[in-house]
Amino acid sequence: MAEVWVLRLGHRPSRDKRVTTHVALAARALGARGIAVSTKDPELEKVVRSVVERFGGDFEIRTGVKWREFVGQFDGDVVHLTMYGIHIDDAIERIGSENVLVIVGAEKVPPEVYQMAKFNVAVGNQPHSEVAALAVFLDRLMKGGGLRKDFKGRLRILPCERGKKVVSDSE
Amino acid sequence: MAEVWVLRLGHRPSRDKRVTTHVALAARALGARGIAVSTKDPELEKVVRSVVERFGGDFEIRTGVKWREFVGQFDGDVVHLTMYGIHIDDAIERIGSENVLVIVGAEKVPPEVYQMAKFNVAVGNQPHSEVAALAVFLDRLMKGGGLRKDFKGRLRILPCERGKKVVSDSE
Repeated sequence: MAEVWVLRLGHRPSRDKRVTTHVALAARALGARGIAVSTKDPELEKVVRSVVERFGGDFEIRTGVKWREFVGQFDGDVVHLTMYGIHIDDAIERIGSENVLVIVGAEKVPPEVYQMAKFNVAVGNQPHSEVAALAVFLDRLMKGGGLRKDFKGRLRILPCERGKKVVSDSE
Repeated sequence: MAEVWVLRLGHRPSRDKRVTTHVALAARALGARGIAVSTKDPELEKVVRSVVERFGGDFEIRTGVKWREFVGQFDGDVVHLTMYGIHIDDAIERIGSENVLVIVGAEKVPPEVYQMAKFNVAVGNQPHSEVAALAVFLDRLMKGGGLRKDFKGRLRILPCERGKKVVSDSE
């Protein structure tokens, strides 16, 4: 698998602050290389970069991105997650080993997104959550590998049956 | 797989309205039988029941649930999703074919939850999103079967390469 990017459309900083934060952090935790957000949002950038700074990895966030240009210039397969698309069971094997750009909207996306995407994919043809859809899509796309990434962070959480174990590198 | 229930702890109706809605709808779309929310929230119940009424299935939502009793009386394995837990790769095979109760917190959960749970499971030992964690956990637990459930709803979305196809039963 080459690089996976996420594009978040229709983000409204006041209303969508928390859900877009979930989208961004899920993208990072599940192995994506970065997220582009079509609306400028310095606060969102700050929150996500703070996680990267502490927990590691090379995850990038860019906000205020001109999304049509971003999609047009993307070198790889463009996938749009929508409950109206082809079921993920039927779509995932058709997505190659190229770079993948995954588009997730906040509410309705412009109709042209359905045309720009090579694949419109439904993580179940039911209304639910773009955070959930993105997470399952990335997990399946990377065959579980995203969750096994070593982030080499300054803070590291050690798996534990009960309680919390966090290791912090001295600086 | 028997029944899977989700328990949402620490929900604050004003602050967590949207994220808890995502948790509930993702639980439904990924095959859970129902969700119990520890805080009373009639508005949340209304939103979720409206989806069930239109899109089908027998998904239940209960709010204002006394969660310690709910956990204590649950007949099956109790799983708590936390980034501090055992990695899902190492945990999922240990979870039997009993009923499963999946606990997801809004912010920090009371320490006793780590003790009450048979398994504390990390969908990656990284900070991200309880919506994403729940979705990946349910998808893996049901080996993808949750997303293939036939909801037999009054409204049905037909998978489609481009655009939107919705079939509505006449009443």
